[in-house]
Amino acid sequence: MRSPDASPRRAVVLISGGLDSSTALAIAREQGYACYGLCVDYGQRHRAELAAAHRIAIALGVRDYKLMHLDLSTIGGSALTDPTVAVPETPTEGIPVTYVPARNTLLLGLALAWAEVLEAWNIFIGVNAIDYSGYPDCRPEFIQAFETMAQRATKASVEGKRFKIHTPLIELSKAQIIEHGLRLGVDYSITVSCYQADDEGRACGVCDACRLRRAGFGSASAADPTPYR
Amino acid sequence: MRSPDASPRRAVVLISGGLDSSTALAIAREQGYACYGLCVDYGQRHRAELAAAHRIAIALGVRDYKLMHLDLSTIGGSALTDPTVAVPETPTEGIPVTYVPARNTLLLGLALAWAEVLEAWNIFIGVNAIDYSGYPDCRPEFIQAFETMAQRATKASVEGKRFKIHTPLIELSKAQIIEHGLRLGVDYSITVSCYQADDEGRACGVCDACRLRRAGFGSASAADPTPYR
Repeated sequence: MRSPDASPRRAVVLISGGLDSSTALAIAREQGYACYGLCVDYGQRHRAELAAAHRIAIALGVRDYKLMHLDLSTIGGSALTDPTVAVPETPTEGIPVTYVPARNTLLLGLALAWAEVLEAWNIFIGVNAIDYSGYPDCRPEFIQAFETMAQRATKASVEGKRFKIHTPLIELSKAQIIEHGLRLGVDYSITVSCYQADDEGRACGVCDACRLRRAGFGSASAADPTPYR
Repeated sequence: MRSPDASPRRAVVLISGGLDSSTALAIAREQGYACYGLCVDYGQRHRAELAAAHRIAIALGVRDYKLMHLDLSTIGGSALTDPTVAVPETPTEGIPVTYVPARNTLLLGLALAWAEVLEAWNIFIGVNAIDYSGYPDCRPEFIQAFETMAQRATKASVEGKRFKIHTPLIELSKAQIIEHGLRLGVDYSITVSCYQADDEGRACGVCDACRLRRAGFGSASAADPTPYR
C-alpha cells in the first residue's frame, strides 16, 4: 500500500473532458500517481469540453490543473477547428474530417514540456485504437514513435530520465473502457464527448463521437447518462 | 531552371528572427521552395525577435506568414520564458538554463500541422549542432526521431505522403552559416539573436546567443552588423 505521506510518482494526464481521457485519469490515480491534469484549448468548436475537463479534474482529485491555449483554428483543416466545415452526422469512409492535423503531437508535446518541469516521468493519454475514429495519432505506432522522440528531445532525457507515455485504453473497446471507469467511480454524466455539444454540454447524439459513446454504453449494458438535447 | 509560373514545391520554414533561421529561409528559397514562414510567440522574453521574424519574412519574400501563440511561460522552467530566471552572461557547464522544455517538439509540431493543411511536404528548421548551446532538440538524432514520428502522426502520412524535416545548417559552423547567408543576400542587421534584446532589438553582447553570433562574424571575417546597446 502506498502511504499518503510517501512522495508519489507524478504523472501529467491529458484531459479533454471526454469519456476516454476521464477514464485514463481515473486509471492513473488508481495506479498511485499524483496527477497533474492538462487541458488544451486548441480552438475546438465543442467548447463545453473545456468546462467538463475542469469538472472531471476536480472530481478525480488532480494535484494541479492547467489549461493551455493553442489556437489551431488559425491553421484549420478540420471540422473541429474550422466552423465552415460541418461535423459529419452519418458514418464516413476513411479518416473523417474531424481529424485535426498534428493534434496529438502537439498535446503530447505540451504534456512533455510540463512533465519535464514537474519532473514527472509519466504522461497519460486516453487514446484508443479499437472503437475510434481512425485518427492516425491514436495508434500504438504513433505513440511509440513519440516516446522514442521524447527520449531525444529533452534535457531530462539527455540526463538519463525516461519519459513513459501511458495509453491504458489503447487496446480496450469502448464498452470495456466504460466498464473499467464505472468500477473506478467515474461519473460519466459530467463528461462531454460530443463534437458539437451545446454550451450546457448536451450532446447531438449523431456525430461520430456520440455514436461510439452511445454504442459503448449499450455494449456495456450500462445506463447512458449523457444529456442529449 | 524553375519557371516562375511552375507550381513550386511548398515548404513551411520556422523563423525566429535570429541569424540561423533567417539563413535557413534563404536556403529554402534558393532551393526553389515556395516558403511559408511560421513564427511562434511562445512567451519568450526577447520580444524583439518577433518583429525581426516578420521583417525577415518580408525581406526574403515568403508566400505567407503566420504568427502563432503558445504561452510556454505558464510552464516556465527556462530563463527564456520565466522572468525570474536570469539569462547567464558568462559561459556555463552543460545544457544552459536558456533551454526551453520541449520547444522544438512544439515548434515542429505546429509546422507539421500547417504543412499538412498546405500540402507542403517540406519543413525547414535552422537548428545547428556545432556552434550551439547544447540544446538536446537541436541534434540530428532528435530531428530524425521527429521525422519518423511525423510519418505516423498525420492523415497525409497514412495516405502515403512523407514529410521531410530539412536542417540545412545542422553541420555548419556559425561562420559557415554566416558566409552562406551573406552569399544569399541575407541582411543580418535586421535579425535579432540576443536572448535579452531590448525593444529596439539591440543586443546585450554577452549572453550565449550573442557570444556565438559575435564569434561567428569574427571567424567569417565579416563585419558584425549587430546593433549592440
